[in-house]
Amino acid sequence: MSVTAAKGFTAAGIAAGIKDNGNPDLALVVNDGPRRAAAGVFTSNRVKAAPVLWSEQVMKSGQVSAVVLNSGGANACTGPKGFQDTHATAEKVAEVLGRGAIEVAVCSTGLIGVLLPMDKLLPGIQTAADRLSEHGGEKAAIAIKTTDTVHKTAVVSKDGWTVGGMAKGAGMLAPGLATMLVVITTDADLDSGVLDKALRSATHVTFDRVDSDGCMSTNDTVLLLSSGASGITPAYEEFAEAVRAVCDDLGQQLIRDAEGASKDIKVEVINAASEADAVEVGRSIARNNLLKCAIHGEDPNWGRVLSAIGTTSAAFEPDRLNVAINGVWVCKNGSVGEDRELVDMRYREVHIVADLAAGSETATIWTNDLTADYVHENSAYSS
Amino acid sequence: MSVTAAKGFTAAGIAAGIKDNGNPDLALVVNDGPRRAAAGVFTSNRVKAAPVLWSEQVMKSGQVSAVVLNSGGANACTGPKGFQDTHATAEKVAEVLGRGAIEVAVCSTGLIGVLLPMDKLLPGIQTAADRLSEHGGEKAAIAIKTTDTVHKTAVVSKDGWTVGGMAKGAGMLAPGLATMLVVITTDADLDSGVLDKALRSATHVTFDRVDSDGCMSTNDTVLLLSSGASGITPAYEEFAEAVRAVCDDLGQQLIRDAEGASKDIKVEVINAASEADAVEVGRSIARNNLLKCAIHGEDPNWGRVLSAIGTTSAAFEPDRLNVAINGVWVCKNGSVGEDRELVDMRYREVHIVADLAAGSETATIWTNDLTADYVHENSAYSS
Repeated sequence: MSVTAAKGFTAAGIAAGIKDNGNPDLALVVNDGPRRAAAGVFTSNRVKAAPVLWSEQVMKSGQVSAVVLNSGGANACTGPKGFQDTHATAEKVAEVLGRGAIEVAVCSTGLIGVLLPMDKLLPGIQTAADRLSEHGGEKAAIAIKTTDTVHKTAVVSKDGWTVGGMAKGAGMLAPGLATMLVVITTDADLDSGVLDKALRSATHVTFDRVDSDGCMSTNDTVLLLSSGASGITPAYEEFAEAVRAVCDDLGQQLIRDAEGASKDIKVEVINAASEADAVEVGRSIARNNLLKCAIHGEDPNWGRVLSAIGTTSAAFEPDRLNVAINGVWVCKNGSVGEDRELVDMRYREVHIVADLAAGSETATIWTNDLTADYVHENSAYSS
Repeated sequence: MSVTAAKGFTAAGIAAGIKDNGNPDLALVVNDGPRRAAAGVFTSNRVKAAPVLWSEQVMKSGQVSAVVLNSGGANACTGPKGFQDTHATAEKVAEVLGRGAIEVAVCSTGLIGVLLPMDKLLPGIQTAADRLSEHGGEKAAIAIKTTDTVHKTAVVSKDGWTVGGMAKGAGMLAPGLATMLVVITTDADLDSGVLDKALRSATHVTFDRVDSDGCMSTNDTVLLLSSGASGITPAYEEFAEAVRAVCDDLGQQLIRDAEGASKDIKVEVINAASEADAVEVGRSIARNNLLKCAIHGEDPNWGRVLSAIGTTSAAFEPDRLNVAINGVWVCKNGSVGEDRELVDMRYREVHIVADLAAGSETATIWTNDLTADYVHENSAYSS
């Protein structure tokens, strides 16, 4: 049900001809109100795509009537012309919907450094608007795919109100957001300040902790829109938990569809002196290419975990570190622990626990193994 | 000629049986004086192998009579027993050479988390000592190989004095030292303070800027030993330049032999506001897996260069960035530049120039492409 699970939203997904192969490449999500509150979180990459620069401005008012998303081109590193194209895209959506352009968020994904084919994109917007439907969420989710093998949606329904969303992303997944376009909608009746708070606290522990390949995108965008159509204003904690659940679900789907991956790796750092230490250590482990290769080879090579921990500034003593892989404590007190032969790595999910023995804080980072298929997908063609 | 090019040194390389396959695995380098001055630079990884912890202590006196190096086991993450084994190794060398153990540096390389077979290593030291020779440098260089496909040596000879060295390393190459064991010798008559200064300034711009896979070893060691046997004390600048040349030559050999690599990538950052900015940007580009895959596929994907620059804290304006790949300015002012079809990427060396347009400082980082062969080498067996 995706972005149309919540009341007050319509959506569409069509093939506008932006992609050469004729696959769906344009999605439109419209908030029919009565509220049009919104919040957004964007890439922390300092090289931001034109649609990110635009949507950041849109979000300042906390009001969004529509989101237009295209795959088949990132419109990043495209200079003033690229920004004009984003602006023209928002203007066209505003025109066909009868709204102001400053209430239209724009998202793009695809190859960096190529201008969008506006002669196809602009007519496509009219086509998408003509097909807007309360059942259009699935098609919208399909239209934003790039190298994704499956489309990703999630829904949490509570007493009379709903949070639902869609996501795309399968590579360039990294913190400070994993590569992704995400649109989440709700019919809970909440203002943009509450949406912003709930969204930031959710992304902080979900998308920000998905790190497939350490590469941060120029286009990452996560939007949360409220129509208020349920007429219900849930308690903040309950709403925040629902948003977190949807983000967590979508984040897990991103990891499971990561390019070329054969293993999903849960890196859990425990007994850290601070949450920041736990995250730093988790990321360092998650980004270690040698470890990621070892996991691919089903080799419980804990030495590579320790060498990754050793590059961080976190509080720990090397001779107090413990590491478990799939439940076997292969490293105890910084040295050889239980027999590595006991580690069963035949399944897709691999669980690494790094015990810093320095406090009581914890954090979990999700990543993937590094495979020849990843190399192939990212060397055989531009993306 | 390796470590025996300079006068006053003998060396040997033998098969002690540490490696199961019977290949050479033990090297001994002896300084016969008259001087026995030395300096060392070690991994900045906080998880340090036992031989690193030992050799750091040895180096405090600035006196080294001998270096013993083994491949086939890193003796890292091996706890108190591992440190005892390193100590016993130094004691054995001291015994057979008639010196003090505290003048014996120890280096190990191989799998982390496995104790060394001391029953083979200790008798091997006697064998190596029996074979010490002024022509043993080559054999020593061969004995320290792990996944190296070739042994690495370099020599610079000046007016009556010489700097020569050997290196091993083919994976886990990263800054703050690339994975490596390096022993450099000279017959120039210099004290340990001068050696230390020359060695640190050389490694700072050579080994520290070799970043094959972003993974930092627990065992990296670079030693510089002076016998003073030439009786000549060169001017500091001349000596430092010779040490830098040997380090640069060995660093290049490490990159060219990196595991699974098909391209050597020179990342040159220019017009940075500071050298630190230039290094940070260079490293970020050199560590971007997506870019490294693109280079493997001979795809001049400059968008991945920009997205890597965008993750740094360096001073720059996104719309003033320029990027050249093999001489073609594919990105100008943060946007599309010259035609990417003009970029010829058929050759092994690839040259990326990132112009930050923010100052006048520069730095060069060397890296490799990311290949299916790298994945295979690092997933198919433990190392």
